[in-house]
Amino acid sequence: MAKTVSREKEVEVEGHLIDSMILTKIYDRIIELGGDYKTLEFRIGKHKTDKSYIRMIAKGRSPENLKDILNEIYALGAVPIETAEVTVVPAPGDMIFPDNFYSTTNNPTQVFFDGEWIEVEDTMMDKVIVINPVTKRAHCKPFREVKKGDLIVAGEAGVRVKPPERSRESTGIFKFMSSSSSSEKPAPAMIKQIAQDLHNVKRAGGKVAVVAGPAVVHTGAAGALAELIREGYVDVLLSGNALAVHDVEAELLETSLGVSLKEGIPDVRGCRNHIVAINEIYKAGDLRAAVKKGVLKSGIIYECVKKEVPFVLAGSIRDDGPLPDVITDTVIAQQEYKKQLKGVTMVLMLASTLHGIAVGNMLPSTVKLVCVDINPASVTKLLDRGSTQAVGVVSDIGTLLPLLAEEIGKLNRHNENTT
Amino acid sequence: MAKTVSREKEVEVEGHLIDSMILTKIYDRIIELGGDYKTLEFRIGKHKTDKSYIRMIAKGRSPENLKDILNEIYALGAVPIETAEVTVVPAPGDMIFPDNFYSTTNNPTQVFFDGEWIEVEDTMMDKVIVINPVTKRAHCKPFREVKKGDLIVAGEAGVRVKPPERSRESTGIFKFMSSSSSSEKPAPAMIKQIAQDLHNVKRAGGKVAVVAGPAVVHTGAAGALAELIREGYVDVLLSGNALAVHDVEAELLETSLGVSLKEGIPDVRGCRNHIVAINEIYKAGDLRAAVKKGVLKSGIIYECVKKEVPFVLAGSIRDDGPLPDVITDTVIAQQEYKKQLKGVTMVLMLASTLHGIAVGNMLPSTVKLVCVDINPASVTKLLDRGSTQAVGVVSDIGTLLPLLAEEIGKLNRHNENTT
Amino acid sequence: MAKTVSREKEVEVEGHLIDSMILTKIYDRIIELGGDYKTLEFRIGKHKTDKSYIRMIAKGRSPENLKDILNEIYALGAVPIETAEVTVVPAPGDMIFPDNFYSTTNNPTQVFFDGEWIEVEDTMMDKVIVINPVTKRAHCKPFREVKKGDLIVAGEAGVRVKPPERSRESTGIFKFMSSSSSSEKPAPAMIKQIAQDLHNVKRAGGKVAVVAGPAVVHTGAAGALAELIREGYVDVLLSGNALAVHDVEAELLETSLGVSLKEGIPDVRGCRNHIVAINEIYKAGDLRAAVKKGVLKSGIIYECVKKEVPFVLAGSIRDDGPLPDVITDTVIAQQEYKKQLKGVTMVLMLASTLHGIAVGNMLPSTVKLVCVDINPASVTKLLDRGSTQAVGVVSDIGTLLPLLAEEIGKLNRHNENTT
Amino acid sequence: MAKTVSREKEVEVEGHLIDSMILTKIYDRIIELGGDYKTLEFRIGKHKTDKSYIRMIAKGRSPENLKDILNEIYALGAVPIETAEVTVVPAPGDMIFPDNFYSTTNNPTQVFFDGEWIEVEDTMMDKVIVINPVTKRAHCKPFREVKKGDLIVAGEAGVRVKPPERSRESTGIFKFMSSSSSSEKPAPAMIKQIAQDLHNVKRAGGKVAVVAGPAVVHTGAAGALAELIREGYVDVLLSGNALAVHDVEAELLETSLGVSLKEGIPDVRGCRNHIVAINEIYKAGDLRAAVKKGVLKSGIIYECVKKEVPFVLAGSIRDDGPLPDVITDTVIAQQEYKKQLKGVTMVLMLASTLHGIAVGNMLPSTVKLVCVDINPASVTKLLDRGSTQAVGVVSDIGTLLPLLAEEIGKLNRHNENTT
Repeated sequence: MAKTVSREKEVEVEGHLIDSMILTKIYDRIIELGGDYKTLEFRIGKHKTDKSYIRMIAKGRSPENLKDILNEIYALGAVPIETAEVTVVPAPGDMIFPDNFYSTTNNPTQVFFDGEWIEVEDTMMDKVIVINPVTKRAHCKPFREVKKGDLIVAGEAGVRVKPPERSRESTGIFKFMSSSSSSEKPAPAMIKQIAQDLHNVKRAGGKVAVVAGPAVVHTGAAGALAELIREGYVDVLLSGNALAVHDVEAELLETSLGVSLKEGIPDVRGCRNHIVAINEIYKAGDLRAAVKKGVLKSGIIYECVKKEVPFVLAGSIRDDGPLPDVITDTVIAQQEYKKQLKGVTMVLMLASTLHGIAVGNMLPSTVKLVCVDINPASVTKLLDRGSTQAVGVVSDIGTLLPLLAEEIGKLNRHNENTT
Repeated sequence: MAKTVSREKEVEVEGHLIDSMILTKIYDRIIELGGDYKTLEFRIGKHKTDKSYIRMIAKGRSPENLKDILNEIYALGAVPIETAEVTVVPAPGDMIFPDNFYSTTNNPTQVFFDGEWIEVEDTMMDKVIVINPVTKRAHCKPFREVKKGDLIVAGEAGVRVKPPERSRESTGIFKFMSSSSSSEKPAPAMIKQIAQDLHNVKRAGGKVAVVAGPAVVHTGAAGALAELIREGYVDVLLSGNALAVHDVEAELLETSLGVSLKEGIPDVRGCRNHIVAINEIYKAGDLRAAVKKGVLKSGIIYECVKKEVPFVLAGSIRDDGPLPDVITDTVIAQQEYKKQLKGVTMVLMLASTLHGIAVGNMLPSTVKLVCVDINPASVTKLLDRGSTQAVGVVSDIGTLLPLLAEEIGKLNRHNENTT
Repeated sequence: MAKTVSREKEVEVEGHLIDSMILTKIYDRIIELGGDYKTLEFRIGKHKTDKSYIRMIAKGRSPENLKDILNEIYALGAVPIETAEVTVVPAPGDMIFPDNFYSTTNNPTQVFFDGEWIEVEDTMMDKVIVINPVTKRAHCKPFREVKKGDLIVAGEAGVRVKPPERSRESTGIFKFMSSSSSSEKPAPAMIKQIAQDLHNVKRAGGKVAVVAGPAVVHTGAAGALAELIREGYVDVLLSGNALAVHDVEAELLETSLGVSLKEGIPDVRGCRNHIVAINEIYKAGDLRAAVKKGVLKSGIIYECVKKEVPFVLAGSIRDDGPLPDVITDTVIAQQEYKKQLKGVTMVLMLASTLHGIAVGNMLPSTVKLVCVDINPASVTKLLDRGSTQAVGVVSDIGTLLPLLAEEIGKLNRHNENTT
Repeated sequence: MAKTVSREKEVEVEGHLIDSMILTKIYDRIIELGGDYKTLEFRIGKHKTDKSYIRMIAKGRSPENLKDILNEIYALGAVPIETAEVTVVPAPGDMIFPDNFYSTTNNPTQVFFDGEWIEVEDTMMDKVIVINPVTKRAHCKPFREVKKGDLIVAGEAGVRVKPPERSRESTGIFKFMSSSSSSEKPAPAMIKQIAQDLHNVKRAGGKVAVVAGPAVVHTGAAGALAELIREGYVDVLLSGNALAVHDVEAELLETSLGVSLKEGIPDVRGCRNHIVAINEIYKAGDLRAAVKKGVLKSGIIYECVKKEVPFVLAGSIRDDGPLPDVITDTVIAQQEYKKQLKGVTMVLMLASTLHGIAVGNMLPSTVKLVCVDINPASVTKLLDRGSTQAVGVVSDIGTLLPLLAEEIGKLNRHNENTT
């Protein structure tokens, strides 16, 4: 008899089950795994603002199958009727997880520990949850930060995940692009929407992070990004060596990878220009010193230094130089990125695949994300772990960014006039 | 001895052999085919404006091999020392070529007929040359226009091809983009160059053809193209059913494929909008009638009708409708395209693969060609048979075209002020 | 009071509302349009095989808004409680629809006419429904087939649409690829699945259509497609001029666009080879005659003729020639495509954008569709009007097709051994 | 008079000036810079094996212009008639170059120091040349390796560059693909050529490096790469964390990013699988230990360990974990890559952009390079600094690699039979 019982489990879910497709996903996963279900109770929201509630029995073909099913539907927001305590197991060694470790999603998560639900802090994808039994706080941690003896959550019991519900109030670009990324959307209207969103986020006191690749400079859009920074629309810049090198090259030598930004043809000895740019920064000391000494008088980095906007440059194996400001150790660079992303409410990814994916892995699903690239495959990849708050725009950063800066300028002037 | 002679042939070439890589190509082809050569005389241009001259013996491993080699290097501009008469063979039937027909390139071509060099008219790729012995004129003709008995050029003897030399005076976008298409060129400078080229071509009395795909409308750039037409920068528009349908839909219903051009979200019953647009045109009679009756009051087609700019819409199997104005027979549509392309000096291809390739096949290598698409593979394909007068731009037509119209506007105003 | 009533309407829906996301879509659309709803009754399927049922009041902000909402949710499968007769309006002229025409989806559709539900035949996207009041049959018709006086369905009342429910029994590639197209799926396993699906479809007496582009020949996969035809896996081939021209070129001259299929380098006078191929077919009369006369002895077209597999070649404006077998009028070619697609159960689209989109427009949502292209944007476009029965594979047709033919061969041999 | 002299300079060049387009490039650059030239002497190679020789006067519009011109044409292989000593300047500080530093190309380079031509070692792009006056050796060095006082070559005088001449003996894939990368080449023939080239390189005692991205595993091609390693076709593997993680995941859990490699559908709790894989390696110690302890029994890494093929995993900011074997400091990882690339004769880049570009920056132009990716833009980028020994293949690694392993197997068997 015990056996029979162990192939079935009563669970419940509450929320916008239909709108947000939570129930659809739960059914899908049960059936994909060969299980079955029986609905015991269903209350559907009568009006659009009401939540729905379902109580159901999930059935497996075997106890193991049921376990599989439960593991999957718990991650979708289902919770067992009776709440179990979360299981914690001490880490068997530094940088080693216990075998049955719970792997996090990027969704808001709680654990039931010592009789109460604790919110997990620093939610990120693919990490473990470490509980401090004294302070009763829970944090997401990656391999390199786990110490022997850390109490790590194991199994799915006692963990509650809240997948993001589709915002009924989604506005601007997130409403505009509801049907996924596309290269065939009306660009002028789309750009207006992004500008409006940025504007609203800033007026509401939000924090904006920009992740930018070197194509921003090559395509001639550095001036537009510099303008966004100057106008106060960027709170942190996350990038790599190349963006800074090419920004300096563009400002000091008016070329990008040796090609004249005005004439489009290679400069004399142009292919050494980015090396010259790096050398000038080494001579000055570093980027900040170069601004202070008057070596660097305009551009993306210049505006960051002037506005005291923090910028983090993470090293990669393809770097020339790299600049003294670059964090060459990638594990340390990840920590620095994470630190700067705390409290961020909106992220713009501009033609950046490597650093864009890195940031994507660190973001909770609740942060608004706009990702622009000319390559549809890159956009798809960047949105892969996406949330309903993420939109992709397939466009040319070199033409889109100047138009965006123009729109932002209009909003600013309008704002000044009306205040 | 006769044998020896038949494995060797003396030829000569004159022109900018080094600059234009003509000599490089001739050497390459001889060696790829396993032959050899001996240089008899070489005069190199002393200054940049001087032409070079080479007289050489091409050698094959066998008479057949020599023939192969000669066939190939004749197409590159080499000519035998003694000029032979062109061979003509009557077409054995309607739409049938003689077996040894000479297949044309898109380069300027002459035939030595009845003791004199005749210029071949309507030069196009992959056609035959038909000679009229009475008028002593030679024309390129495709299969469907060949009649039984037409005198068709056979073999390579007596044909002289002039591959385009790289213009030392190349300006604007053609100089700017000399290093092939790229998605990482400084866009603002690039757009300025295209604007300047268009402006110069029009001031010099040139003829501009635009080949446009429906993405021009979907991406919100229809207004910018309409402006270029209104300002007199377009002399003929070549496209298909979809561009016109979506232009009408955008003007009548403010949507593109049912998606609001302002809001970005699907309109109510939006997916019937393009069918509604077609129906409105059928009700009016056709596009021109719709403009005259005041049904269509703005947009790309409207400006064409108002400005009396001819437009040719070629049918394709994926067409909805198609509109009454569409030429559904593709052979007739080709003839109409060809007619309109006569005398054209510059072509803009805007996000159009199907019609773009069709136009590319019809253009002589001497026409300036700027091709814009967001997909690098499409740009590569469109430039495949390319000449040194063709450049590709990988960008988003929805953001590029409005910036181009803006630049054109500046040039116009500047022009008015200075005159 | 009448006013109040006209802002509300009672509707019902039945089916796998949760699994197939029908209810999610209905809620979405109501809210996007600014309306509201009230659930009156909801019966959820207790087990996975049970259907769900909802009865609800849809509310608009105004009578017009309600009408908009109803138009949209009827298309998603909602039906008013009381069944209304369908409205029909005579076509005001040849090729002219009445203003309020009902525009079809590609889903199974019924109309309530003269007291009974009639199944609409030849369901296709973006057409009108014409009812024959005598035979009581209803057909989808495009513009060019509508005659003055035809009874055309207008408005949404009396029309019932059945959006495809997600098949719980989806197998093979359709289950495999449930998470949309990708270039990072395990290719060998994927190819096995497609082979198994093709095999199953044929064993069950299904009909397979192949839509193929010329890249099949350029990439060296013509032999593999020929094998699939020879082995009986293809019931109809839909393509254009280029596929046939290049197939003939490959068979007669062992080149594709003049490039040797074995050596990869341009053949002597190679660029005239496709013109030679066309000429040979004109000399023979047409493709079938060329096979009968022994001119064409192998390849894709050869196998079609030998196996009596119908092939339809639709003309396009970029065609060379075109071959005598090509239907140059695109409206007639569409009709021929449609005729051949009758009763088709599975479609393979192989590196064909133009003809692929044409076929996609003609297919009901219930037909299985596998679409292969190396360009992710093309795959997305081809699946755009997609159903849950459509999967996209981003891969190289030149390497995928030989591996597919190999798998099919294994299944055939296995089959022979076990029977 | 001195003035006149300083606007002109006599230079000479020798080599396959026409074939290799060296003369074309020299003329181009002079004219682009607004200069002129006068040919004094020209001896053209009479036969295909003969070298050509030119002596000419390069003219600038000003002394500065002449200097610009000379700087550019020296990099193309021109040398002044009278040989000047190279100028060396001590580095003003650690990691600081003198202002006029000579920036290297990836071509073979010599410096005229102390009366003799010295070959520069470790030739790489964008570095400086450091001369040891005692040993009379010259090396390429990047920023981070330059110490205060190092003697660094400045200016172009006394530097001789030998741009690669096009090999007349180019074989296999390098001949096959002479017309640049393409997605429309006959794939089966192309794969045969690559196999033959690999085979020839190995039989001649060459060294093969493979640079592989994680898509090799995701697309199901890990087995094929493992086979190439087992069969002795790979001498060093350069990659990052993700390839190794996914290889381990595939071997231990039969999934890639949680998706079953056999079924194509997500595994239960699949998204934690790559974290499980990392944890297993941490538990074992590192990858080598995991093989020795029998944890890892097959796959890419397993074969490397068994065959004692060195592998270098360079960290990046998007890494999960990363594995204990990963070099997280990118500057150290670059040094390790460079060390392993010493003496390499052929490089295969398989679906790897980040590490591929890194390797490309380190390779001299004389190394054979085959680069495979499904994205044409990635292939273009990887070949950007390309030499005539580099070819790009646009294809699906998941279908190409198994076919390549099959061809290699055939060659091996054939070889065994004939020996």
